[in-house]
Amino acid sequence: MTKVSQFNMPRLYHFTLDPYGRRLRLALAEYGIDVQAVDEKPWAPSAQLLQLSPTGLSPVYVEDSGTAVVSPEAISEYLEETVGERHPLIPGNALARAEVRRLVNWFDVKFYTEVTEPILTEKVISRFVTNRGSSGSPNMARVRAARQMLGSHLDYISALSEERSFLAGNDLSNADLAAAAHISAIDYLGDVPWAEHPVAQMWYMRIKSRPSFKVLLGDTIPGVPASSHYSNLDF
Amino acid sequence: MTKVSQFNMPRLYHFTLDPYGRRLRLALAEYGIDVQAVDEKPWAPSAQLLQLSPTGLSPVYVEDSGTAVVSPEAISEYLEETVGERHPLIPGNALARAEVRRLVNWFDVKFYTEVTEPILTEKVISRFVTNRGSSGSPNMARVRAARQMLGSHLDYISALSEERSFLAGNDLSNADLAAAAHISAIDYLGDVPWAEHPVAQMWYMRIKSRPSFKVLLGDTIPGVPASSHYSNLDF
Repeated sequence: MTKVSQFNMPRLYHFTLDPYGRRLRLALAEYGIDVQAVDEKPWAPSAQLLQLSPTGLSPVYVEDSGTAVVSPEAISEYLEETVGERHPLIPGNALARAEVRRLVNWFDVKFYTEVTEPILTEKVISRFVTNRGSSGSPNMARVRAARQMLGSHLDYISALSEERSFLAGNDLSNADLAAAAHISAIDYLGDVPWAEHPVAQMWYMRIKSRPSFKVLLGDTIPGVPASSHYSNLDF
Repeated sequence: MTKVSQFNMPRLYHFTLDPYGRRLRLALAEYGIDVQAVDEKPWAPSAQLLQLSPTGLSPVYVEDSGTAVVSPEAISEYLEETVGERHPLIPGNALARAEVRRLVNWFDVKFYTEVTEPILTEKVISRFVTNRGSSGSPNMARVRAARQMLGSHLDYISALSEERSFLAGNDLSNADLAAAAHISAIDYLGDVPWAEHPVAQMWYMRIKSRPSFKVLLGDTIPGVPASSHYSNLDF
């Protein structure tokens, strides 16, 4: 664990629309942990982030003591072990916890690869990063393919929420927060076809109405305005 | 959790060279759990695997009772919670456990993307899968770029093993098993430049000499012979 100078409260280094940072912001709010969020840009990590994490990737969580925890799953499990006793986000017995982690993996790997990454890269990151050989303008074919995949993921959410109170079982868990973190990033950009997926929309309205969700509703990215319904609880 | 018919012993559905399946085979052997390994091919998942896991991705772990656990991290944490008490593979306090998980993520995401995936795809999977528009022959430029990245990962392993007994601390952990799982898949194909990385080689010899490692040393893939030193403990 890398140590940096001490702070008055824990810090979370994150990029506004990064789904992993978004899930942790939701989780910290659910646990009732006040945190100072430090904005990072994945295309230009700060010197302090690079000191904390050799990959330069956020999210990184730094405790008051200056101790840093790096990588989404490590932070998520660390918080559950240290502050999750009263309101666990990986609740239940070992099998129930495995179901939470299966779904977190589903959203963090499958949904991310098929939906979040292409849409974020093409609609946001390509504005700020011009690779050699790329025009800098979004590849709309990738965005359309990702929107198509999003439809089947919303169907999966509908199916899960028809048979369970929350995505992984009877209780709110990291599975709901992971799904909502990815979807809210896409929703910021206005790419979620809610009208075609009313059951998934009902689930999302319930998560979005939680007090913890307020930490995401004020998000803004310079030059990339939020969709008109992004912060609307009755969308 | 999907249930299938009951077995006499737990089963692990896996693809021989898949690093996630390899880490779990090592972990099960370290925990002392006998398991029936069921071969899967990522390009042609069996009907039973598809029934257990909607993504068709291995590894999937199925208990004697027929209960299935899906996705690498979910299986890994499930085993630690249910059979890991005596010989934990995520040992220590919450911070030590976070360091194990940070390194597992390093190998399972960064090493996988930069090294394992390109080398496995180009040298093995491309032999069996012919995509439209691809010639079916390996893209050696991708393999060379991956071999170059492998060098810096071996330097990182050397740096860690010079300051600690094992990669994440004083004890064997999932960090060592994850690193060894990825490296052993590459080593099967003969792509590890051991002579240039003697400190990393010393660490790997120690892991490879563990009784648990025997489960990997007999691996064979039809049409893809193992490198001459793959199963040699004194390579």
